[in-house]
Amino acid sequence: MERGLSAMEAMFNPGSVAVIGASDNPGKLGSHVMKSLTQGRYPGRIYPINPGKDEILGIKAYPSLFRVPDTLDLAIIVLPAEQVPKIIKECKEKGIKGIVLITAGFKEIEDKRGETLQKEITELAHQTGIKIIGPNTFGIVNLHLPLNASFTPEFSLVDKGGISFVSQSGGMSHLMAFLSLQNKVGLSKIIGLGNRCNVDFSETVEYLIQDSQTKVIAMYLEGIDHPKRLMEVAERGNREKPILAYKVGRSSTSDKASQFHTGSLAGKHEIYEGAFKQAGILMVGSSEELLDAAKALTMCPLPEGNRVAVLSGQAGPGMAACDICEMEGLIIPPFSTETQKRVEELLPPLAIRTNPVDMGPAWYDSEAAKGIVKTVLEDKKIDAVILCIMFASANRSAVGVLTHLLLEKGTNKPVLCCFSSPAGIWDDEIKQLEESGIPNYPTPERAAKVLSNLYRFKKGRG
Amino acid sequence: MERGLSAMEAMFNPGSVAVIGASDNPGKLGSHVMKSLTQGRYPGRIYPINPGKDEILGIKAYPSLFRVPDTLDLAIIVLPAEQVPKIIKECKEKGIKGIVLITAGFKEIEDKRGETLQKEITELAHQTGIKIIGPNTFGIVNLHLPLNASFTPEFSLVDKGGISFVSQSGGMSHLMAFLSLQNKVGLSKIIGLGNRCNVDFSETVEYLIQDSQTKVIAMYLEGIDHPKRLMEVAERGNREKPILAYKVGRSSTSDKASQFHTGSLAGKHEIYEGAFKQAGILMVGSSEELLDAAKALTMCPLPEGNRVAVLSGQAGPGMAACDICEMEGLIIPPFSTETQKRVEELLPPLAIRTNPVDMGPAWYDSEAAKGIVKTVLEDKKIDAVILCIMFASANRSAVGVLTHLLLEKGTNKPVLCCFSSPAGIWDDEIKQLEESGIPNYPTPERAAKVLSNLYRFKKGRG
Repeated sequence: MERGLSAMEAMFNPGSVAVIGASDNPGKLGSHVMKSLTQGRYPGRIYPINPGKDEILGIKAYPSLFRVPDTLDLAIIVLPAEQVPKIIKECKEKGIKGIVLITAGFKEIEDKRGETLQKEITELAHQTGIKIIGPNTFGIVNLHLPLNASFTPEFSLVDKGGISFVSQSGGMSHLMAFLSLQNKVGLSKIIGLGNRCNVDFSETVEYLIQDSQTKVIAMYLEGIDHPKRLMEVAERGNREKPILAYKVGRSSTSDKASQFHTGSLAGKHEIYEGAFKQAGILMVGSSEELLDAAKALTMCPLPEGNRVAVLSGQAGPGMAACDICEMEGLIIPPFSTETQKRVEELLPPLAIRTNPVDMGPAWYDSEAAKGIVKTVLEDKKIDAVILCIMFASANRSAVGVLTHLLLEKGTNKPVLCCFSSPAGIWDDEIKQLEESGIPNYPTPERAAKVLSNLYRFKKGRG
Repeated sequence: MERGLSAMEAMFNPGSVAVIGASDNPGKLGSHVMKSLTQGRYPGRIYPINPGKDEILGIKAYPSLFRVPDTLDLAIIVLPAEQVPKIIKECKEKGIKGIVLITAGFKEIEDKRGETLQKEITELAHQTGIKIIGPNTFGIVNLHLPLNASFTPEFSLVDKGGISFVSQSGGMSHLMAFLSLQNKVGLSKIIGLGNRCNVDFSETVEYLIQDSQTKVIAMYLEGIDHPKRLMEVAERGNREKPILAYKVGRSSTSDKASQFHTGSLAGKHEIYEGAFKQAGILMVGSSEELLDAAKALTMCPLPEGNRVAVLSGQAGPGMAACDICEMEGLIIPPFSTETQKRVEELLPPLAIRTNPVDMGPAWYDSEAAKGIVKTVLEDKKIDAVILCIMFASANRSAVGVLTHLLLEKGTNKPVLCCFSSPAGIWDDEIKQLEESGIPNYPTPERAAKVLSNLYRFKKGRG
């Protein structure tokens, strides 16, 4: 390794990659991996390894690692399980520091041979010092390089962003990637830990904490072997970077299922809950909640307290937001006297002028809407703002006016929006707002839930 | 009224519509209403009423109702509040049976005059027998006619379908319409009740129960004046059509806010909860949950019991579904002996072969995946199935194979799917499945939550 990269760094930002078991048969994982690298526009050098081929997808292939006339940073292995130990030794000889071991058939299978093989490769990993992600993983993705070292080329469709997702489940990683696509949220790394032989949550989170392209670390887990190590890493790192966890196994069925799945006992949910809390890790209850909260944590300031102003273009959505806020421990307090006075000056004697404010009557007077948002943002009795406007022909310009205000003014308080419209109407404004740290959500309830998670995270981190 | 339509029927399926206060000034609601009718391809006759214009948007305008050389079924009124009583009398004289009264400035305003005007028009409504939706409403939409009698032309973008949405909040109606667009769910009617002068929830629900284009009735409410009447109507009708309610005002703030909003006291949430339960109305907790559950109720059979099989292409998403199921009172029981035996024959000794089943190893053997789903659907110990597959290159064909099986076989048990992929990959299969009564959701958790709502509805209806 002439570049002197650490093993984890070599894995996520390799200058060269060997695909051991590369194939051009579209039914083989070795072909999907090749497509992920090439279609994903990996900018480094790719070396397919296959003793029977001169060329794969137009790239020169080599019969073995030793014939590659280059140093190699990362090897992706898609060979049958029984060939893996020998290949790991060859990787060591070639000076490879990181392996993505996609091959399945290790400790996750009922057959004893799987267990034995897993022990063998774990020992090899320790002996050689090579960092091995997997076995039984879809791979890893670094959308910033970009590197798609997985069997799913479609991961490369996701935008690059600040959230790194580390998961014990390949299925959940795919789900999170597709949810990110649908919700236009950018990701940094997508990491499938698989059976975890010498790269577990703790090593990965430690790496991501110092990774400048990662702003927020989101984990999906079922059960872990060394919870204490993860908690220590998280406790040290959580001031630098928010860490979130979505853990399944709350129910007895899924708890039992996870034993089979990754060979780990999920263990009592309450124990994890307590440990996460102590380590400042924000625990969430669904995949959507994980993505929603992670997105806000990449862009928003945290609220100093739990006092929320709800400003909405229509009363109903504002009330829906209030309900969720109060159920989740936030409060919707009265404004300061000055703010209240100013809001009453700006709004006609119509509808709701206290917190929550129904800004409906200000649709026709964008200066009034601007004035309300501005004065409420400056109110010292308010820690965060939820802003909801549902599109209607007559309020088409409202979001533009408020976007202009928010971008010009800036804010050190979190502002969470639900600007809802048919596709294409407010897309530009929402994009501008999100680039300036003001996230948008599809419903008022989800915006409110996110705010409660921001507050819970702030409190939990102490 | 030569056609002898009932007032409600004349309102939702009018042969002719007058727009009183029609305008071609794009800053006026009267212009948005005209666009809604024309761009929404209303097939009936449109008569703009405006004393200062000969033509509006290319349609001949009339100075008054009396000059219209046609019978009129529906009038949409967008005049200032103080002109409304006189116009209602004119509508009566002209034989109009239904009015959509968009005009605001009635009992929702602080000013006493609003209250007085509201009383006046309510009396007029009773005297004349004209059904008046509103005042202070965005209007009504019947996507089947199609009729867009609202100030938002974009409602016409929504697909026609079986869910009718009745709401006390215009904002919530817009939100639900945009969520329907995003989630590709079809709607039948969208109804904004506004201040409710003589058309309240009970009249509307009664109409929708006998409306053949409505399969499910979804309500959003804050507080109602005559809860007893609604409960009686619902109790009579809920065997014919599922009725759902999303009520805000759970928190003290939103409860208070709703008094101002629609002039009604939201009232203790628990009282509504009990009343809805007794009337067989399914109560839900968010806009997304309302749409998700309503969608399933338009297409799925109800589960006979609470015993769920979770079959997934990857273990993680299956476990996430199990967690939600068990938290919501469903159970994930062992299969019958024969089913268990068959699943073990079909799957290699890999991963999870009990309930939940990890069908991952069957990716490469579509006959195995088909066999598992088929045998589980036939298991007498199972009342419903959740089917989750996250796309990966190697399982691209899995959803096609299962779709074929499900369409061919049919099922009288609810099957809820979470087939997740980048846009364009499984769209056709998902569309075919949904047309055959098998709904798809963006996450396993949402699919599981919907199933729990189907079961709760089934139990609640008795």
